Amino acid sequence: MPKRVDHDDRRQRICEALWRIASARGLYDVGMRDVAAEAGMSLGQLQHYFTSKDEMLAVALRRLGDLAGDRIRGRLARLTEPPTPRVVLRESLTEMLPLNDGSRIGNLVQAAYFERAVHDERLRAIAKDGIPSLRALFADQLRRAIDGGQVAADRDPDAEAMILISLVDGLTSYVLLEVHTPETALALLDRYLSALFDSAADHPVPSGEPHKDQRARPAGR
Amino acid sequence: MPKRVDHDDRRQRICEALWRIASARGLYDVGMRDVAAEAGMSLGQLQHYFTSKDEMLAVALRRLGDLAGDRIRGRLARLTEPPTPRVVLRESLTEMLPLNDGSRIGNLVQAAYFERAVHDERLRAIAKDGIPSLRALFADQLRRAIDGGQVAADRDPDAEAMILISLVDGLTSYVLLEVHTPETALALLDRYLSALFDSAADHPVPSGEPHKDQRARPAGR
Repeated sequence: MPKRVDHDDRRQRICEALWRIASARGLYDVGMRDVAAEAGMSLGQLQHYFTSKDEMLAVALRRLGDLAGDRIRGRLARLTEPPTPRVVLRESLTEMLPLNDGSRIGNLVQAAYFERAVHDERLRAIAKDGIPSLRALFADQLRRAIDGGQVAADRDPDAEAMILISLVDGLTSYVLLEVHTPETALALLDRYLSALFDSAADHPVPSGEPHKDQRARPAGR
Repeated sequence: MPKRVDHDDRRQRICEALWRIASARGLYDVGMRDVAAEAGMSLGQLQHYFTSKDEMLAVALRRLGDLAGDRIRGRLARLTEPPTPRVVLRESLTEMLPLNDGSRIGNLVQAAYFERAVHDERLRAIAKDGIPSLRALFADQLRRAIDGGQVAADRDPDAEAMILISLVDGLTSYVLLEVHTPETALALLDRYLSALFDSAADHPVPSGEPHKDQRARPAGR
């Protein structure tokens, strides 16, 4: 089905053109004509794939979220040994910071969408679509770390997961505003993780149960 | 000088019109004509005060930052007794969350500016203008808390200050995206502050110097 492949390819080209514009100068004064020009096609050709700017924005935002998830999963898959909860958290959160081209462009495009998402229910739904699964992944790792005695037993995994996501979001905003460098943002994240994983020293598992290394107990509790 | 007062009043009316629009629907497709209409004046009258949209955005953003600072200072001034560092931090950070109309509108307007600030050097300079003083205020309070034995001596006041600012920024973004409510954001902030002020129990002041403030540590450890 060469026709079908061609269509997918065109849609992808349009999304990539939109991301390049969003990353380079933002989306606030960008029309479909600009995106068509950037994608190297006519406005009519672009309108064959997206009948409205809103539809184009929605599709491009959804693909962007998928890419961010792929980057995190890829990074975790490249680890050579079974990672500790701390490594999973650090690798995932680091990938969310604008430290490489992929995540920086993703962050810039998300920044371009943010204002619209605040005022547009459909974009908002897409913008927050990945949060529950990310939060569940982090909460699960935190639960393992608490079970393993690396994080204090009085920490709430779900709350801590949302704190981590929010912290990285804020650290990223201040990188984009050039308040601090990506490297400083990473150093601040590491400080936070150190304090979190240091917390267990003072709040041991209350039951008196011996601390288990989570690597040794991947299967059930 | 009645003429002068009138000019100031007009500029303020224009800023308020811009904030109302930014808060209600964002700034992405807003022109000077829209702002003039919202302010109840002609485009020509508005252009008497602001010759370009960029200039108008810059002035309105600067005034918004001043207002945010005023809200925090006002809140601290209304405290009846000399506040502990923890109270100063909590009151200031709480005022930054979208828990009341003033701060919610401020957050919405800042969200509307954010994308532009990322791509516009002048707006970026204004958007981050208040950060150093806020960070210095928080770092100073954290230093007091460390001296007083309420926060662990191994915490870095400047780093912790930026972590707090970033966390509240991220918590706010997720309120605006309706991932969580303002009340949940506050509960997460409180969790973070509790962990921070709990940290001293395990990392006492290394010098052996007696702790100055007993309020936060009623019964030793």
